[in-house]
Amino acid sequence: MLVDLRSDTVTQPTQEMREAMYRAEVGDDVYDEDPTIHRLQELAAEMTGKEAALFVPTGTMGNAIAVLTHAGRGQAVMVGDESHIYHYEAGGASTLGGSPMYVVPTHASGMLDLERVRDGIAGLADPHVSPTGLICVENTHNRCGGTVLTVEQLASLADLAHAHNIPVHMDGARLFNAAVALDQPVRELARPVDSLMFCLSKGLSAPVGSLLVGSKDFIRRALRTRKLLGGGMRQAGFLAAAGIVALEQMVERLADDHARCKRLALALADMPQVEVSPEKTVTNMVIFRLRDQQGAALDATETQRFIQAAREQGVLMGQSGAGRVRAVTHYGIEDEHIEAAIQGIRQALRDVMPA
Amino acid sequence: MLVDLRSDTVTQPTQEMREAMYRAEVGDDVYDEDPTIHRLQELAAEMTGKEAALFVPTGTMGNAIAVLTHAGRGQAVMVGDESHIYHYEAGGASTLGGSPMYVVPTHASGMLDLERVRDGIAGLADPHVSPTGLICVENTHNRCGGTVLTVEQLASLADLAHAHNIPVHMDGARLFNAAVALDQPVRELARPVDSLMFCLSKGLSAPVGSLLVGSKDFIRRALRTRKLLGGGMRQAGFLAAAGIVALEQMVERLADDHARCKRLALALADMPQVEVSPEKTVTNMVIFRLRDQQGAALDATETQRFIQAAREQGVLMGQSGAGRVRAVTHYGIEDEHIEAAIQGIRQALRDVMPA
Amino acid sequence: MLVDLRSDTVTQPTQEMREAMYRAEVGDDVYDEDPTIHRLQELAAEMTGKEAALFVPTGTMGNAIAVLTHAGRGQAVMVGDESHIYHYEAGGASTLGGSPMYVVPTHASGMLDLERVRDGIAGLADPHVSPTGLICVENTHNRCGGTVLTVEQLASLADLAHAHNIPVHMDGARLFNAAVALDQPVRELARPVDSLMFCLSKGLSAPVGSLLVGSKDFIRRALRTRKLLGGGMRQAGFLAAAGIVALEQMVERLADDHARCKRLALALADMPQVEVSPEKTVTNMVIFRLRDQQGAALDATETQRFIQAAREQGVLMGQSGAGRVRAVTHYGIEDEHIEAAIQGIRQALRDVMPA
Amino acid sequence: MLVDLRSDTVTQPTQEMREAMYRAEVGDDVYDEDPTIHRLQELAAEMTGKEAALFVPTGTMGNAIAVLTHAGRGQAVMVGDESHIYHYEAGGASTLGGSPMYVVPTHASGMLDLERVRDGIAGLADPHVSPTGLICVENTHNRCGGTVLTVEQLASLADLAHAHNIPVHMDGARLFNAAVALDQPVRELARPVDSLMFCLSKGLSAPVGSLLVGSKDFIRRALRTRKLLGGGMRQAGFLAAAGIVALEQMVERLADDHARCKRLALALADMPQVEVSPEKTVTNMVIFRLRDQQGAALDATETQRFIQAAREQGVLMGQSGAGRVRAVTHYGIEDEHIEAAIQGIRQALRDVMPA
Repeated sequence: MLVDLRSDTVTQPTQEMREAMYRAEVGDDVYDEDPTIHRLQELAAEMTGKEAALFVPTGTMGNAIAVLTHAGRGQAVMVGDESHIYHYEAGGASTLGGSPMYVVPTHASGMLDLERVRDGIAGLADPHVSPTGLICVENTHNRCGGTVLTVEQLASLADLAHAHNIPVHMDGARLFNAAVALDQPVRELARPVDSLMFCLSKGLSAPVGSLLVGSKDFIRRALRTRKLLGGGMRQAGFLAAAGIVALEQMVERLADDHARCKRLALALADMPQVEVSPEKTVTNMVIFRLRDQQGAALDATETQRFIQAAREQGVLMGQSGAGRVRAVTHYGIEDEHIEAAIQGIRQALRDVMPA
Repeated sequence: MLVDLRSDTVTQPTQEMREAMYRAEVGDDVYDEDPTIHRLQELAAEMTGKEAALFVPTGTMGNAIAVLTHAGRGQAVMVGDESHIYHYEAGGASTLGGSPMYVVPTHASGMLDLERVRDGIAGLADPHVSPTGLICVENTHNRCGGTVLTVEQLASLADLAHAHNIPVHMDGARLFNAAVALDQPVRELARPVDSLMFCLSKGLSAPVGSLLVGSKDFIRRALRTRKLLGGGMRQAGFLAAAGIVALEQMVERLADDHARCKRLALALADMPQVEVSPEKTVTNMVIFRLRDQQGAALDATETQRFIQAAREQGVLMGQSGAGRVRAVTHYGIEDEHIEAAIQGIRQALRDVMPA
Repeated sequence: MLVDLRSDTVTQPTQEMREAMYRAEVGDDVYDEDPTIHRLQELAAEMTGKEAALFVPTGTMGNAIAVLTHAGRGQAVMVGDESHIYHYEAGGASTLGGSPMYVVPTHASGMLDLERVRDGIAGLADPHVSPTGLICVENTHNRCGGTVLTVEQLASLADLAHAHNIPVHMDGARLFNAAVALDQPVRELARPVDSLMFCLSKGLSAPVGSLLVGSKDFIRRALRTRKLLGGGMRQAGFLAAAGIVALEQMVERLADDHARCKRLALALADMPQVEVSPEKTVTNMVIFRLRDQQGAALDATETQRFIQAAREQGVLMGQSGAGRVRAVTHYGIEDEHIEAAIQGIRQALRDVMPA
Repeated sequence: MLVDLRSDTVTQPTQEMREAMYRAEVGDDVYDEDPTIHRLQELAAEMTGKEAALFVPTGTMGNAIAVLTHAGRGQAVMVGDESHIYHYEAGGASTLGGSPMYVVPTHASGMLDLERVRDGIAGLADPHVSPTGLICVENTHNRCGGTVLTVEQLASLADLAHAHNIPVHMDGARLFNAAVALDQPVRELARPVDSLMFCLSKGLSAPVGSLLVGSKDFIRRALRTRKLLGGGMRQAGFLAAAGIVALEQMVERLADDHARCKRLALALADMPQVEVSPEKTVTNMVIFRLRDQQGAALDATETQRFIQAAREQGVLMGQSGAGRVRAVTHYGIEDEHIEAAIQGIRQALRDVMPA
């Protein structure tokens, strides 16, 4: 049995999605004539409580569009030092947009350090310093282990930003996981921020696509940026059809992914070579480190050897930062897969760290 | 009867495409695990005679990736003054890549003026001048009216470029139209150039997607640029499934689009208010101007009035440059639509220019 | 006798400039505390009739600051196809600013084709097209041979631009030559445009520096851009001291440079191998082409051979575009140098094109 | 008595510099014909033990040129989280060059955390991540209080970088201060790095200018980047003449600045409201914080109030990061100024924090 815990991006679409795609009514979305895209965008705006939404091919593009649309050339984009935008989007904010990234520390919760945010906000007084044009926040927070930011946390950041007339963008690639974990509607989590991106293609299991949402004016400008980046697709309604199924049928079941991930985290906590904080696993991710018999943390190379050993046991995982193993549950991972993963990891640990 | 001649991008997918999508075997293409994407990329490489291919969401992104991958920051990209890259891709070469565009005149055939290309090529001798990093050519040529460049024309340009160690990229959004018009395999047309992009979503009628092809090394680097731009999609095999149908079933029928467009061009040539060169219509586009009874060319505003009048007759067309009307034939436009278009245009001319 | 006609940039400073530098009162201009910089900036603003001025190390930087300050990332900068900004500033508008250049034809007078400017102005309607953020004009016009644009010409362009809320920047590297040729105050020529740059270091003979002038708000923002580009110098008042001498003592004598250049142009017109339009030489430049005995224009390589032959006669000139020889008069070039240049050119023509 | 300790950039040039400027032999440096620039560049190359040098108008431009010349578009530039390049150069690496900055922690010594450098180095394996194109180090380190990095520290960083084929650039704006503090030749400190920039205009008291040094190939390419940024000045030999005096006459006396700064730091350490580590003051800077009677650190606003109170006592200082006061000694600050500064600071403390 193969248990693929590398990412929720590997999820196969549901049968309902295939059927919705088969029947999809489509048009040329560059001419704004795709009815299924229209339905998806309206649904996304409604669920997030924002004025408008824009379908984009990927989460990375959604974030890039947000950055380029909010922040002008030379304006700094404030990001967390553990954020996906900073680490895993090929530096697009700076490379494509000419916006320097100003990096602030991230707490273990995934929250930005507000004191450092405050100190880092720059205006136009000093020409040596790039003025702050945007602050980005991530929810759930990937490299912190799928942690969840509450409305109160988001509001405290947004209040600070807005006091300086700086917009806030939320990288909500897995925002529905946060909403399910908090048992709150997504629209509550979206309220404090000016724009947000969420993905249809991770836990929600759609094949392709993300939504960028915000004010009408923002989305109108974002449409131009999407064209610039080459994200203006034609009969994209096929992808939207699957996305609508994702939003209508696949949200509530995220709770199952979370329960299974917690089960895995607790089992890991019982293994002496594993360093993990199962109380931090509140969504569909667990991140752990390994220690050898002397208690020393394994480095990136040694950790990779463990990952390879687990792969030989049929358990696929990856590193998220040097020496940190990440496992992600998702649609298609059932209870039996979790049990198989636990067995496989135990065996892999024996293989690489024999007593 | 509505006759939509605005663009071949409005084409609806075929039933075979819907079925192929329904059945598509997919995987996470960011992990390079989508088997249908693999099949499409191999097919594209094979048909164009290049080493490798990369699926991208749009033609604009395909061209942007090519420019950013070939030309470093500060290297000039030589483009024709009527090219799509220069006019209709939001300046991405310069905006995203920091590559200035060096603009050379285009002949009515769509061919770049070789003398001016030669004069414009710059090396590293003079620090005042951006060194040439790439030359782009377009085939078929959109703003010239779907004109076709022959292998000989392409080779003459490529020989000049390669003599200066400069690569050539072909914007072949409608390259299959060129191949059908010339009755030559696409691979012949691809031979002189270093990379090329072609679209599945225009005359070939697939819903979404384009292919970038070139050497293995180029495509390996292009993959990084695709990630940067946010074009790395997950279960993209759905789109690829339709694309494979497009390449296998929809190429030969382009000849019908060409014949119908020629029929339309000849009919336009018979209308006294129309200025058109039907001998130039060799693929699926015709571009024409209008003249009033004094023989003066209509300007952009007056031309827009004609386009509106035609729309009221059920014939949709657009402007391609100020005062130039463009009509495009495609899958779904049958003989009867052409006849209806001719009637509608005649009536629209009467409406806006009564005798 | 060496006659250096390559450019007016080679001019040696006057004795008065050396003395003014020696005595200059200076401070840290990054702290805005250099009194001589203040004096120069006030003088520049006053002479051009604008609110404020900023000292910059070079004309290229002055133009780059103007482009980046006026035009946001992704906004097109409209430039003439023979302009210095387009050809000789390393593509900075696009490379540094991410602003695509939109290129319009230039008349022999140095004036942009207004019809093409009008057609090329783009707003926000079409996301395929970069919106126009700035129009640049050049006066005197270098590659057109030092031609002069009148206030009326500048106003016609500015009126068109302003009707679309687009600012106009004038590259006035040699604006004082234009003013002297037109016998008008610089402030008249500056009136139609929103910003302009002029050089202290060409005909005006100062060693280093240019001024960027415009509204107070523009200059305040330009100061930030100057810092970004690394143009914020410390005790720059030394350079400013020479610049003040240039503005106070070196303007009127430009008429002598013009007269001498006209003398040279008329002599060239008498040489059968030379193609020149002496009536176009109204400032300190003459551009000419050479023809062989069959009347064919010499190409770039052959022209370079002539330039080398002239150099052997002690006459230094350069090419300004392929096959175009440029000679420039300036402070230090006296009547006797002109006579020597004429003799040297005649001999060089005999050397490379013996009868 | 006014004691200006804001920065060593405010230094007035010496009489010898004025005389050298007055007599300077100059030419057009864009044509590479300025003999005094040649002399300065050769002297700089010789003193740093590198192949070649390039005169640039400012340190900020020198660093920007280094970044753009070493790192291509999209390559990450690794910088310390307290570095000048990251904080005070308007984000030029990212804004102008499209190079994201990857930020690593800085030790109190000014040294980068080598472990984090190692973890942060990225190659081409993962398209999500910008590959590392350059690592920057700063010596002396401004925001750390003028701290000095030894040859061994520099070599350890460079060895790590070079093992990954990554070049190292040193921002040596005050490198001569480091050399004097270590009693080592500058060439020793320059040896481990691939390029470096040092300023003539800070402790060395020249009015304007910095030198970028490195290999011949690097400097040849840097010359193009200087042109792009608008740093190619004409008769720049005037500035170079003062720079030569700076290098020949002003290096050894930096030891006096250091001694006076140590005196100031020790006096500050005696003041109960001041938090300072006088052992860290080894060059011409001291950075200190203030604490109120409850021992709480003053925030940025309260600190500014102290700075204003000191200004009223004739002592000028600035903040270097929120709540950190910086004082800098330099040419023109004599023993009596230090005594006056100590008195003034004592009085200012009494004024803002009465017992």
